[in-house]
Amino acid sequence: MSLIQPRTLKGFRDFLPSAMVPRERLMEVARTVYRRYGFVPIDTPALEYLEILTGKGSEETDRQMYHFTDAGGREVGMRFDLTVPFARFAAQHINELGTPFKRYHIAPVWRGEAPQAGRYREFVQCDFDTIGTTGVVSDIETALVIHELLLAIGIDRFVIRINNRQVLTAFLRKQGLEQLATPVLRALDKFEKVGGEQVLKELEQNGLTIEQANGVLGLASITGSHDQVLGQLDQLLVGDELGQNGVGRLKEIAGAMIAAGVPAERFRIDVSIARGLDYYTGVVFETILSDLPNIGSICSGGRYDNLAGLYTKQQLPGIGASLGLDRLLAALEQLGHLPAKHAAADVFIALFDPSRLNDYFQLAKIVRAAGFSAEVYPEEKKLAQQLKYADQRGFPLALIAGSRELDEGKVQIKNLLTKVATEVAWRDDPEGFVEALRNMMKLGTDTLLA
Amino acid sequence: MSLIQPRTLKGFRDFLPSAMVPRERLMEVARTVYRRYGFVPIDTPALEYLEILTGKGSEETDRQMYHFTDAGGREVGMRFDLTVPFARFAAQHINELGTPFKRYHIAPVWRGEAPQAGRYREFVQCDFDTIGTTGVVSDIETALVIHELLLAIGIDRFVIRINNRQVLTAFLRKQGLEQLATPVLRALDKFEKVGGEQVLKELEQNGLTIEQANGVLGLASITGSHDQVLGQLDQLLVGDELGQNGVGRLKEIAGAMIAAGVPAERFRIDVSIARGLDYYTGVVFETILSDLPNIGSICSGGRYDNLAGLYTKQQLPGIGASLGLDRLLAALEQLGHLPAKHAAADVFIALFDPSRLNDYFQLAKIVRAAGFSAEVYPEEKKLAQQLKYADQRGFPLALIAGSRELDEGKVQIKNLLTKVATEVAWRDDPEGFVEALRNMMKLGTDTLLA
Repeated sequence: MSLIQPRTLKGFRDFLPSAMVPRERLMEVARTVYRRYGFVPIDTPALEYLEILTGKGSEETDRQMYHFTDAGGREVGMRFDLTVPFARFAAQHINELGTPFKRYHIAPVWRGEAPQAGRYREFVQCDFDTIGTTGVVSDIETALVIHELLLAIGIDRFVIRINNRQVLTAFLRKQGLEQLATPVLRALDKFEKVGGEQVLKELEQNGLTIEQANGVLGLASITGSHDQVLGQLDQLLVGDELGQNGVGRLKEIAGAMIAAGVPAERFRIDVSIARGLDYYTGVVFETILSDLPNIGSICSGGRYDNLAGLYTKQQLPGIGASLGLDRLLAALEQLGHLPAKHAAADVFIALFDPSRLNDYFQLAKIVRAAGFSAEVYPEEKKLAQQLKYADQRGFPLALIAGSRELDEGKVQIKNLLTKVATEVAWRDDPEGFVEALRNMMKLGTDTLLA
Repeated sequence: MSLIQPRTLKGFRDFLPSAMVPRERLMEVARTVYRRYGFVPIDTPALEYLEILTGKGSEETDRQMYHFTDAGGREVGMRFDLTVPFARFAAQHINELGTPFKRYHIAPVWRGEAPQAGRYREFVQCDFDTIGTTGVVSDIETALVIHELLLAIGIDRFVIRINNRQVLTAFLRKQGLEQLATPVLRALDKFEKVGGEQVLKELEQNGLTIEQANGVLGLASITGSHDQVLGQLDQLLVGDELGQNGVGRLKEIAGAMIAAGVPAERFRIDVSIARGLDYYTGVVFETILSDLPNIGSICSGGRYDNLAGLYTKQQLPGIGASLGLDRLLAALEQLGHLPAKHAAADVFIALFDPSRLNDYFQLAKIVRAAGFSAEVYPEEKKLAQQLKYADQRGFPLALIAGSRELDEGKVQIKNLLTKVATEVAWRDDPEGFVEALRNMMKLGTDTLLA
């Protein structure tokens, strides 16, 4: 029989344990932090009616979508993000759920885009949103979740950039540039990346006079402490109600973040960020790693006026953000924050004497009951081979006992990193044995984490 | 603009928080228990080359598969289980991973079968497998994982049924029924459900003499303690090497399970179970809830000789099992093990005075730092309305503070179940406040868990 070549589709990935362990850990951290702020999980189908998915999509997402006719003749598509399904979900269930409604959703999405470095056709999104309220409390909570999420992941050198589209809108209106909002914001969004001169050029190419272009650039160049930036914006937009509201909201957010213990250097009022998506109407966020600014934002989002207008007449304002799992994992790897080895378990139990299975499983029971993970080696192989396996898998500790030790109720505990070993009595003194396990586990811990 | 009707495809489900919270909890428990035994996570793409998926599938799974031609002209399909992708994965990566290799995989699969009660076109599988070894240690660990998994989920009235296909094969050979193995095992598998008379009838319809049929039925009727059953099997298969091996392995498993602390009544050597799938060749498992035997097995699996023969010449024997998430959740609901309400968070913070946001967020910071989850209500609404929301969401505690209390650095803690309330100083005595929170949380806990 000829073999089928085992391979994955272009743009799709297998996750081996070395990649999956940190992915799973990140998703767990995200769930924990989302829950700490009262967000609850939902899930929606991978497949939806095509008309649901194309309803809001741009031409580009439509083109990238995986879609087909199912066996029942229905036109169906695989979700390309979690926002469109959430809009459909909200329209369908919001009366039962009530508002405000805070959900998180961690799930894969699919886009048939041209594969390129760091871009995949299947990737996981980690979204959280609060809908059914326009309250600034939700803006503040969103910022606090982003802050706590990064700390919980183990990153402390980052800056959350915060802006308010209302400020931008008011400013453009004041300058008579309303009609040119899209190209102006697109140019402005590049300020950090390409610098002022390039932005000026792009603005002039889009029909702005040199005065207008300088005005826009002046906006993006406002820097200083939060109070200084907010003070200058206040002055700039004096007498404009929308602008004053927008600045006022940024003041409330900045004040509450400080009150909640966020260090001032971890966030910045940054008038140059706009976030491309058309549907943001209020506060917008980006999160930049201080040590890897060029990879772009790893957690972004913003406030919108109406989530589900395509599916219901009920107005559902809200605010949400999304953690970029793949980008973040790549960053953690680049920063050396991912350990090279992920131990399959804490304790490796060598199978020295296959006729004494019951003893090994009694031993394993004590180890697991003490909160350690453990595995018994399943093959009758030479001890050296078994320890090589344990070493390769990164087990910190091995338990070794032959028939003599088992007869005496003893076992050797070996720290596989330091090679230190000690023999202890486990059968008659399980507490003493567990204590010795804990002590042996601590040996060389610094090196392990390094 | 006309609205698009928000709806899901037939056979697909939205999971609202009330359904998703216990699902997520079950998956977390499964991950924790799998890890405790040294299993590590992997993931594979939802989409695979069609030839990969159809390679091993039966005609039925082929017919049920969602498949289509992608934009690049490739024939692709959505995975209908996690075993076929694992076989492809193992063939591709086993040299890098090494053996034995223990993985778990928790992920959705898709089948376009006719929707019926309890059957869905999208469902999550929770598989764990050990490959690259024939050692009985892996059989034992598989049984221990199943046992610990159910206990960790909160179920203690269940029986793991264990058989060995080798015993069945040896017995059928002894009876000269090798050629009729498939219909005989199919009939035998129904023993528990339909009773002996029906099985006899089915066996005779399949061409067995009455003596042969009685012999088969005799096998299924062997009961008693583990030792009694194993003793009878021993006698029955005396002189048959395969049969003796099969019985010997069951003895080792039973002995080690007892040694590892599994109560004897939680497992049963049951010669009537065969598990339909053709590829099982050794030990097989089923898990029956004592209080809901009719829903069928909620965790099943077995040993196979070769996982990935379609994709590689490397022989990969192994053993694995799968937790039936949907069936288990339905069972937990039926047994009243799922709480009616899932609190969004522990502590609800009422928004009494919107001009004092900073105070509320300072308060929330102390609460979260103490390990509680908390949310600040985002709308300026009447207190009664806010508390109604908190009540409906199942928050156990509410914090209520107006401007007077905030000026004095105080807050009222209210237990929303017992309605007991107390006022404490939080600003000057955060430790005392946290202590009071913990005490108030304990009030009425018994009722909450009932």
